[in-house]
Amino acid sequence: MALVVMKFGGSSVKTPEHIKRVADIIIGKYRQKNRIVVVVSAPGDTTDELIEMAQQISKNPDEREMDMLLATGEQISIALLAMALKARRVAAISFTGPQAGIFADSSYTKARITRIVPTRIVEALKKNMIVVVAGFQGINPRQEITTLGRGGSDLTAVALAAALKADICEIYTDVDGVYTTDPRLIPQARKIAEISYDEMLEMAGSGAQVMQSRSIEVAKKFGVVIEVKNTFHPEKSGTIIKQEVRKMEEVVVSGVTFDKNQAKLSVIDVPDRPGVAAKIFGMLGKNNINVDMIIQSAARQNYNDISFTVAKTDLAKTLRVLRRAKPLVGASDIISKDNIAKVSIVGVGMRSHSGIAARMFGALARENINIEMIATSEIKISCVIAARDLHRAVQVLHEEFGLDKGTKQ
Amino acid sequence: MALVVMKFGGSSVKTPEHIKRVADIIIGKYRQKNRIVVVVSAPGDTTDELIEMAQQISKNPDEREMDMLLATGEQISIALLAMALKARRVAAISFTGPQAGIFADSSYTKARITRIVPTRIVEALKKNMIVVVAGFQGINPRQEITTLGRGGSDLTAVALAAALKADICEIYTDVDGVYTTDPRLIPQARKIAEISYDEMLEMAGSGAQVMQSRSIEVAKKFGVVIEVKNTFHPEKSGTIIKQEVRKMEEVVVSGVTFDKNQAKLSVIDVPDRPGVAAKIFGMLGKNNINVDMIIQSAARQNYNDISFTVAKTDLAKTLRVLRRAKPLVGASDIISKDNIAKVSIVGVGMRSHSGIAARMFGALARENINIEMIATSEIKISCVIAARDLHRAVQVLHEEFGLDKGTKQ
Repeated sequence: MALVVMKFGGSSVKTPEHIKRVADIIIGKYRQKNRIVVVVSAPGDTTDELIEMAQQISKNPDEREMDMLLATGEQISIALLAMALKARRVAAISFTGPQAGIFADSSYTKARITRIVPTRIVEALKKNMIVVVAGFQGINPRQEITTLGRGGSDLTAVALAAALKADICEIYTDVDGVYTTDPRLIPQARKIAEISYDEMLEMAGSGAQVMQSRSIEVAKKFGVVIEVKNTFHPEKSGTIIKQEVRKMEEVVVSGVTFDKNQAKLSVIDVPDRPGVAAKIFGMLGKNNINVDMIIQSAARQNYNDISFTVAKTDLAKTLRVLRRAKPLVGASDIISKDNIAKVSIVGVGMRSHSGIAARMFGALARENINIEMIATSEIKISCVIAARDLHRAVQVLHEEFGLDKGTKQ
Repeated sequence: MALVVMKFGGSSVKTPEHIKRVADIIIGKYRQKNRIVVVVSAPGDTTDELIEMAQQISKNPDEREMDMLLATGEQISIALLAMALKARRVAAISFTGPQAGIFADSSYTKARITRIVPTRIVEALKKNMIVVVAGFQGINPRQEITTLGRGGSDLTAVALAAALKADICEIYTDVDGVYTTDPRLIPQARKIAEISYDEMLEMAGSGAQVMQSRSIEVAKKFGVVIEVKNTFHPEKSGTIIKQEVRKMEEVVVSGVTFDKNQAKLSVIDVPDRPGVAAKIFGMLGKNNINVDMIIQSAARQNYNDISFTVAKTDLAKTLRVLRRAKPLVGASDIISKDNIAKVSIVGVGMRSHSGIAARMFGALARENINIEMIATSEIKISCVIAARDLHRAVQVLHEEFGLDKGTKQ
C-alpha cells in the first residue's frame, strides 16, 4: 500500500463545485488502495481578500495578527473538503497545521518549519482515513499560529511527504506539468516528463511559476519524489521531479525560462577596493531587497561598475537605498533600467559542454538581440536583454535546443 | 482598576470601518483605566456565507467539519480587531477559543462550555494588554474545535466575565438596550434602565431578540452584571441586567414581548391515561423539536386535547412526528395552525398580584381579540392570539400597563 501526499492549490478549491471535483480525484486515488494525506491551500482569492481587509485596517498590519487572519483561509478549505469526502461516505478528517503537528519558528508571515510530529495523522491513517491538512500554517513554541509565506502549501506537502516517508508527493495545479518554456508564449512548448531537482530549482529561479524553490530544496534534501499534475486532467501523467534522471553524458537543455519582472541597476565608478560590494549588498539585504543577477565589470583604472537585477516592484526602494549608499561607497552615478527581461536555458550537463553557451549567444546574435548581462551556474545560463526582444529570444532558443514539439532532442 | 468584558456582535464588526469604530470604543474604555477583555462574533454575514458553502458541498454536512469551518469567522474578527488596536499603538493580543482556554464538550455545533482556564488571558492582562477573544468557540478534550451554537458569543463573554470575576460584562448590539416592547412596532416603547435576570429570561423566551436565554442563565448563576449597549451610541447608558432590582412590593410589568414565529398544534381526543403526554413529547424531543407552550384541556369523557406551540420552521417536521404518534397514543385527529402569534407581559411581582392577569385579558377583550391559549409563569403571562391581532394587542397592553413613553409607571 503506497502512501501518497496530494496537494491542491487555491485555484483547485475555489468554489464548492471545485472542491467536489477534488474530492473525486482523491477518492479515485484512495480506491486504488493508497493511503492518502491531502494538503490544501485557501480557496481562490480568499488570501488576497483577507490581506485587502487587513490593509483597510492598517497600512502596516501587525504580523502575528496577520497570521491569525490568513490561517483561516486554509481552515475553510480543509473543512469543506473533509465534508465533501465524508458526504461520499469515505472516512476523512481535517487537521489545522497545529493539529497536524507542524511546528514552525516565530517569524510571522514567513515562518520556517522546524519539525513535524504527525501523531494524529499517523493515527488517522491507521484507521484508513483520508487526512486533510491545512497548508501554509504551523504552530510556534508559544502555541501561536504562524504562516509559511509564499509557496507555503507546497512546502507543507513536501515536508509532510518527507516526515511520513510518502512514496510520492503529487502537486496539483492548473497546468499539465512543467514545460520546456511557457506554452502561453511559445505554442511549441512541450511538457517535460522527468526533471531533476537541480534543474527544477533553476527553472523556478528563472521564472517558471509552477513551484517555489523552497519546496524543491526540501524535496531534494529528503529525496521526496514529486509529480506535478493538472487538477482538471488528473488522468494525464504530469512531470516527475526527482534525483538526477539523465542518462550518461547526454547534453541536454531541459527548458527555456524567462522573467519579465526584473529591473537592472548599475552603480557606476565605485573604487576597486575590498568591502565595497559588501557595503552595497549589505544595505540592500537590510532593506529586504532580494538581488538576483550580479555582475561586476573588470576594473579599469581602479574603478568598477557593479550591475545587478531586482524584482521590478523593489525598484523604487532599491533606488532610495542606492542613493544613500552612493556617497558611502564613493560611486559617481546610479543608473536604472526597467524595460529589460531575463531569458535562461536550464539543463544538466551544460557545464561540461562549453559549446552550449556559444550556441545560446550565437542564436541570439543571429536575431540581432543585444545581451546586456550574462550569468551562468552549473546548469543554467541567463542573459538580460531588452524586454521587447524577449518573445523572439525565447522562440529562437526553444528551437535552437530542439525543444519544439515534434523535434527530437 | 475595573475589569470589563466587552462583547461585540457581527453587525458591529461587519467591515474594516466598523472594526475601527469598535477599536475606538474599546480604547476609550481602556483609557479610563480599565482592564479589558473583548469578545467578538464573526463579521456580518460571514457565518451565513460559510453555512451556504457547506450546504453546496452536502445537504447534511459533517458536524465536526462544520465547526472547523465556522470557527474561522470569529478568528477573522479577532485578528482584524487586534490589528486595529495595535495600529493605534495600544498593546493588544488576539486569542482563539482554544488559546483563551475555553474548554467545551464534544457536541459539535452546539457544545457547552465545561470550564475556562484563562491562563494566557490573565498573563496578557497583567502586561496591561487588551485581550481579544473569539466568541462562539471552544476546544474539546480531543483538541478539536467545537462551536457553542446560537448566541454562542454572548455565552463566551458572560462565561469569561464569570471566570475572570469581571466587574461588568458589556454586550454591544445595534439597539440602545432592552425595550418595554419592540420599538419598530410600538414607537412609544421605552428603554428599560434596569431589569432582573428572571425578567430578562422571560423577555428572551418570549421573543425579545437582544440576548439568548442561555447566556442570561449563566449570568444569573454566577451573578455577572450585564449592560446591553449600542455600538453606534456607546455614550448612551444601556440596560443593566442584574439580580432583582425592584423596590418593595411594587407591581411592575417591565415589558410586552411577542413572537410571530410560532405555530400551534393540537392532538385531539387522546385517552386520559398516564404516559400519553410523555409519549408525544418524548417523540418530539427525540426529533430535536423544541416545544414552547403546552396546554392540556380538562378531560371530558376520559379524552383530552393536548395543544402546544413550536417554532414555525419546525411545523412540517412536527406534523410528521405527530402522524406517527397518532395511532400509538390513540388520538382521533391532529390540527395545526400557523397564522398565530404569542404576546406576553413580563414583570416581577406579577404572581402576588392576581389582578394583572385579569387586566391583561380585559384589555384584549375590549379590543375584541380572542385568546386561543394562555400560559403563566412566576413573572410572565402569555397568550396565543390570531397573527392579525398582534399589533393591536401589543399596543393595548403596552398602554394598559403604563409603559408608553411619557407615562409614569
